[in-house]
Formats: sequence, structure tokens, C-alpha cells
Amino acid sequence: MNYQKENFQDLIERMESYLKEKKYVEARDTLTDLEPVDIAYIMESLPEDTIPVVFRLLPKEPAAEVFVELDSDSQESLIKGFSKSELKEVIDELYLDDAVDIIEEMPANVVRRILATADPETRKNINNILQYPEDSTGSIMTTEYIDLKINLTVEDALKKIRRVGQDMETINVMYVVDVDRHLLGYVSIRTLLLADEHDTMKEIMDDNIISASTLDDQEETARKFEKYDFLTMPVVDKENRLVGIVTIDDAIDVLTEETTEDIEKMAAIAPTYKPYLNTGIMETVKSRIPWLLLLMVSATFTGQIISSFEDALAAVTVLNAYIPMLMDTGGNGGSQASVTVIRGISLEEITLKDLAKVIWKEIRVAVVVGIILACCNFVKLMLVDTMLFHNPITLTVALVICTTLVFTVFAAKLVGCSLPIFAKALGFDPAVMASPFITTIVDAISLLIYFQFARMFLHL
Amino acid sequence: MNYQKENFQDLIERMESYLKEKKYVEARDTLTDLEPVDIAYIMESLPEDTIPVVFRLLPKEPAAEVFVELDSDSQESLIKGFSKSELKEVIDELYLDDAVDIIEEMPANVVRRILATADPETRKNINNILQYPEDSTGSIMTTEYIDLKINLTVEDALKKIRRVGQDMETINVMYVVDVDRHLLGYVSIRTLLLADEHDTMKEIMDDNIISASTLDDQEETARKFEKYDFLTMPVVDKENRLVGIVTIDDAIDVLTEETTEDIEKMAAIAPTYKPYLNTGIMETVKSRIPWLLLLMVSATFTGQIISSFEDALAAVTVLNAYIPMLMDTGGNGGSQASVTVIRGISLEEITLKDLAKVIWKEIRVAVVVGIILACCNFVKLMLVDTMLFHNPITLTVALVICTTLVFTVFAAKLVGCSLPIFAKALGFDPAVMASPFITTIVDAISLLIYFQFARMFLHL
Repeated sequence: MNYQKENFQDLIERMESYLKEKKYVEARDTLTDLEPVDIAYIMESLPEDTIPVVFRLLPKEPAAEVFVELDSDSQESLIKGFSKSELKEVIDELYLDDAVDIIEEMPANVVRRILATADPETRKNINNILQYPEDSTGSIMTTEYIDLKINLTVEDALKKIRRVGQDMETINVMYVVDVDRHLLGYVSIRTLLLADEHDTMKEIMDDNIISASTLDDQEETARKFEKYDFLTMPVVDKENRLVGIVTIDDAIDVLTEETTEDIEKMAAIAPTYKPYLNTGIMETVKSRIPWLLLLMVSATFTGQIISSFEDALAAVTVLNAYIPMLMDTGGNGGSQASVTVIRGISLEEITLKDLAKVIWKEIRVAVVVGIILACCNFVKLMLVDTMLFHNPITLTVALVICTTLVFTVFAAKLVGCSLPIFAKALGFDPAVMASPFITTIVDAISLLIYFQFARMFLHL
Repeated sequence: MNYQKENFQDLIERMESYLKEKKYVEARDTLTDLEPVDIAYIMESLPEDTIPVVFRLLPKEPAAEVFVELDSDSQESLIKGFSKSELKEVIDELYLDDAVDIIEEMPANVVRRILATADPETRKNINNILQYPEDSTGSIMTTEYIDLKINLTVEDALKKIRRVGQDMETINVMYVVDVDRHLLGYVSIRTLLLADEHDTMKEIMDDNIISASTLDDQEETARKFEKYDFLTMPVVDKENRLVGIVTIDDAIDVLTEETTEDIEKMAAIAPTYKPYLNTGIMETVKSRIPWLLLLMVSATFTGQIISSFEDALAAVTVLNAYIPMLMDTGGNGGSQASVTVIRGISLEEITLKDLAKVIWKEIRVAVVVGIILACCNFVKLMLVDTMLFHNPITLTVALVICTTLVFTVFAAKLVGCSLPIFAKALGFDPAVMASPFITTIVDAISLLIYFQFARMFLHL
């Protein structure tokens, strides 16, 4: 059956009435054929006190998968209500990397309870992964992979896969190691199936293998999945010994999370790593206040520039009316350049060695854009603004405004394209050098240019 | 071997000198063990006239994979130089979806040449996929998948996979169909390997299957990969007949492309779908000019508001100095809200039915943020600005500025969070309702509030 067109709202209402009337068999049947992520969504849309009831209706295996998809608050309250054997059942069914993800979100007393319940082998593996730093590749890897010794035959390899394959996160790719677990190569399940059964791994494996190190940044590792079209990637320690694998679903989650983080930083927000609707008011305030404050204070300088040219503005009051246009156009032009460059850096299309190329390109773009904008603005000033709004604009005033526009766009593009690259080179996050930051700098520059030209041309 | 730490710059220089000295064996050996995407990168860093030389050095299979990774200009010039048999060799080695991607970028005469060279079966399949609209799921699917009839036994299924598996894009998941090719379920290679060889597909398949339709939007399909952790997804026609599959590598490309498009739109850039450094000057100008022009013209209204309050500004000139701060803070506060909501919409965390929840949340955030900013600003005005800059700020002026700040932040957050949701509801792209657009609206609102309060409190 095809569920994607199913109306979840209907299902939720049906579930609510079944639960109210204690029709548990019907409630269970309603969920049976759904995907775990959809069951989790429906459960979280139901009244909070029914979540444990619904969870206990689910068969063992989907129950664990549904558990993974619940938000951490629901997970925590479920764990607190579990009996010891219930908790053990769920933990044993989880893939190791999912178990680690869940544990990372739980308060210390819940973590202790989980670790005490897990069997010693699982506990050791969980503790092992928990030791890696938060953004490292080690923290997103799993140890549930199949490794094959270099001298194993295809026949024996297939036997091993049939024996242990059920509990592994993937059997699409197996990694080949020597007796000391050094990573030597990989074989895909396709290669195994198509090979002669007496061939050894040494003969059929591919030894051009790209691996990640446990301490590599997880975004860097995730970008390799994108670049090389991997489904899994082996993770090795400093001695090139295989310690785990990363699977593509986790790599995609990292990419999505890092992109959201980039987008938030570009909008002057400190990342929260939580879905918008699950973030508390004070948490949201905390993520937004620091940059707003900093930028508010920085705007003092722009204000002081206006103050210091008070006399010029008083003499030709019409100049005042074009300050917002110049500031906005500068800000927009600058953030176009900076955002493009920031995205290019995070997709690894642009590196420090491209700085000269980028600047040369932006200079040419700025000249063309600036001249087009200035010409359009000139026509608008002389026709619309004088005739429609009766603004007292002389030819000289129009020239001051339009020349400022050209120079503002030029400065904005130059600042916008180079700051992110400098930030990257100095080890800062380029995403911070986006719109709000650039706008503040470009505001000041454009006003200085404006008043300079006004003084020169209008002899103020 | 582990190549990720390899310095490509070294390799490029070595290749250049080998090619100059016509040491082709050495050149070939230098590339042998590299990944196709890395070989393509190195080729494109070499002088343009050496690309065909290097390409002909590569063995047949990696050659096709390298070809896929080259940019479309290099592909086009290679195709133009190919003999008929060379072209046929490359086309036959390509996966179908890659062939279609390449063809979509080529001019008509090159397309004709490719189609004339391909064998009739391939030509039919390529034409079939080319007919789907650009953003549809059909346009990113491949027809190189394995389907298994419902009554097939595991033994026969494995035989079929061994027979045809070599040419398929994936054998990790096979799809089960009836005699009329209606999609009934799927089996993973793991299920097949662990099942009894006399079981039929009917017994072992999973019939909870989520499929995409050929005309579904490709971003929607790609988001399902992310949500359900799929590696492949079946594509069906209107009668639920299996016509192709989408693989995760293409889904990731779609997600990255759509995210870049969102980010560009948020920065008032029309998407170009090309890496930054490969985009021509005029193309970049064309993608940036329209919004800049529109926003420049919109700023006229802000300017007119200032003009119409010229008398108030002349009476209390210090008010002028705080216009940039109010405009910038409003713009930043508004874009924080809009960008967060836009990202939430594109990750499908926020839908129209959340509108009330979102607005209620932003109202509370706005009140807290507004009050904190106003208090900080009040202290700054009375201490720093009066003492350090000697700005003539009375208590009333400070109150006007700070009250305006509270109301500006409130209006900015409200406009910022609701416009993207309204845009989505009306069928427009929410990403357009980001910083620049919001800034223009909020600029006008904040100035109106400012001057209103100035008139009221300062009796102007």
C-alpha cells in the first residue's frame, strides 16, 4: 500500500477515539503498516499521557525503531516509566549509533539507568563511542559492521554474512582487514555475489579505499559521502585500524544540521540544534540576543557619521531621504556576494587559493551592477522623484547619489566576498561574515562615501 | 592506501611535467589509484588542450566514471573530439541517469550525436527519461534496477541478480512486481541472503512500500530519503506500475541544490545552478540585478517617510543619528525570525497549521528581546553617547528611541515569521520572504513608529 497520500490528521483522530474507548486492538491495527517515523509523529500528536499506552501496543521490533524517532522529551518520559525488562528489550533492539544519539540527549540519572540495563558488550561499545568529541566522526559512527579477514574465501564470507548479517546496520559493503585489524580494502555485496566462491578477499577486494579518522570533523566526513557517492565509510584510528563505520543516513543528518547551522549564523542567530517549535522561548531569545546587541551597538558608528555631517544634511535636506536607499542597496549587494561565497566555501567549491579569482570576479560584477543600478536610479530620480514626489533634486544632487551608489556597490561586493574567505583562513566560521555583519560595515562605508561626494560636488 | 591527505597540487604539477615530456605511462600510473571525482578535478586543473590526451590514457571503466564528474564544458569538448566508437564506448559504460544528466546540459547537435551513437535500447530509455519535466522525480530516476516477479523463489532471484547485477545501479534493494509490473513490495539483498532458497518473493517481501510518482516534485521525493532513511525509492506511473528507481546519491544532489537555491533566494539572488567559479560575469549580474533594482526602488518609500518628517528631524537633529540603528536592528530581528521559519518550512517542521503557534512564540520572543535591547540601549544612550560622543540626548529622547526599539522588534518579528508562511500558503516560495524583503518592509514600519513617538513625546 502507498501511504504517502494518507491524511495523518484522520489517523490521529481515529487513534484518539480508539484510545478513549479502550479499543486497543483497533488502535494497534491502525498503526501496524506505518513507517516508524510516521508512527512517532502520530504518537506525539496524541495526548501526552497516552504515549506509553500506545508504545506498549507496538510489536517489539517496530517499537525500538519508533522509539528512535521520538523527540528526546518523549523518550525520556518513556524510559522513566519502563520496567527494567522493558528498557532492556528496547536498548537491545536499537542500533548502536541510535542508542548513543539517545543517550547523548538524556540527563545523567537516565543515562546511568540505560547503561546499567544494557548487556556488558553493548555497554562497552556505547561508552567507547561516547568518549569521542561532539563534532567528531567517532561520535556518529557505529560498530555494527561486518569485517572480513584478508584470506577469507567468498564462500566463507557469505556464510559469515548469513550468520551475523541480521544484527548489522548494513551488509551492502564489508571491510577487509588483516589479523591486526588494519584496514586493507572493501568488497561490496555485489562483488561477493558475482565472484567465484573460492576466490579470497585479497583477490576480489578493492584496495583504493577512502577512510575517515575518528577525530575528523563530522561535517568533513559527511561532505565526502556527497563527493564520492558513498553509502558507508570506514573509520580508522591513528594506526589505520578499523574501529567503526559511518552510514549515509547519519551523514545526511549531519549535512542537514550543519546547513541549518550555517543558515542560522548567516542570519545572526546562534545555533540551537533543535526543531523550531521544540525550542523554548528563553532558548530562542538566548540564540538571538547576542548578535542583535552587538550589531545594535555597532550601528552607533553609522549614527555618529550622520551626526558629524549634520551641517551638510541641514544645508541640503533632500540628501537625508536617500540614506536608507544607499544603506539598503549596499547591504543587499554585499550580502549577495558574501552569502554566495560562504555557500561556496561550505560546499568546498571555494578555497583560500581562489581569493584572487573571487575578488577579480566580484570587481567586474560590481562595476556592471553598480553602473546599471546608478543609471536606473538616475532616471528614477529625475523623472519620478522630482515630478511625482516633488523632491527638490538638482542634476548635481542626482549625480552625487548615483556616483555614491556605484562606489557603495563596489565596496559592498569587495567586503562581502573577501571577509568570509579571510575568516576561513584565520580559522573562524565564514558563515558569521554574512548579511548582518557585512551590512553594518557597508552602512558606514556608504555613508562616508555619500557625504564625501556631497561635500565635493555640492561645495558644503 | 589513504588518499584524502594527498596534496592534489603536487599531483597536478607532476602530471603537467609528465605530459610535457610525453611520459604517458607515468602520467597514467599517477592517476590509476585515484577516485573518479579526483581524477576529474586534476584534469580540469591541467591546460585545456591536454584533457583529451589524459582522458584517452584512462582504462575504459574509470574513463566513463571520470567523464560523469567533469564539468559540462569539458564533457562537450571531449564529445566533439570523440570518434564514433569512442563515444559509443563511453555512453555504453555510463549509468542511465548519468547519461541523461549529461545530455540535459549539451547543445542540440551534440545530443543528436549521442542519441545516434547509443544502442536502440539505451536510446529508448534516455528519451523516456528526458520527457519528464525538469524538477520532477521522473527526471532524476534511472531504469537500471532489478525487478523480481512475485512468484519467483529466492534461489531464482539470486540467479537473476548474479546474471544482471553487474549492469544495475544498485542491488541493495530489489522491487517485487506482478505480471503487469504493478509494484507490490520490496526485498533487500540482506533478506534474500538470510531467507530459505525455496521461499517465494510473496513470502519474504515487505509490502509496506513508499513510492514516488514520476511527476512528484524532486525535492519532495528527496526529503523522503532524509525522513525514512532510504537508499533507493521506487518510482511508479499513475497506474502504480514500476517505471524506475531513484538512488540516494541523486537525492542528496537534489537536497544540496535546493538548499543552495533557498540560501540564494534568502540573499535576494536568482538561482544559477552552477558552481560560483564556473558562472560567467553577466550570468552573475543577471542573477543579482533584479532583486537589487526592486529593493532599491522600494527604498524610495522609506526615503519619503524621512522627507515627510523633515521638520521634526530639523527640530531635534540628534534623532537622525539613531535612524541607522533602528533600521538595522529591525532588519536583523526580522530576518532572524523569517530565516528560522523559512528553514523550518523547507525541512517540513513548520506547516500552515502551525501559524498560530509560530506567531504566539515570536510575540513572546519579541517582547523579551525588545525589552532587553531597549534597556541596554537606554544605558548606552545615557552613559556612552552623552558622555563620550557628547550627543545632546535628553531623558525624553532616550525614551523615544528605546520605546521605538521595543515596537520595531515586535513588528519585525511578527512580519518576519508570518510572511514566509503566508507565501507558502499562497503557493509562492517562502525563501523569497527573507532578509532583504523583510528589511525593506520593517525599515518603513520602524521609521513610522519612530517619528510617531517623536511627535507624541517631544511635541513636535
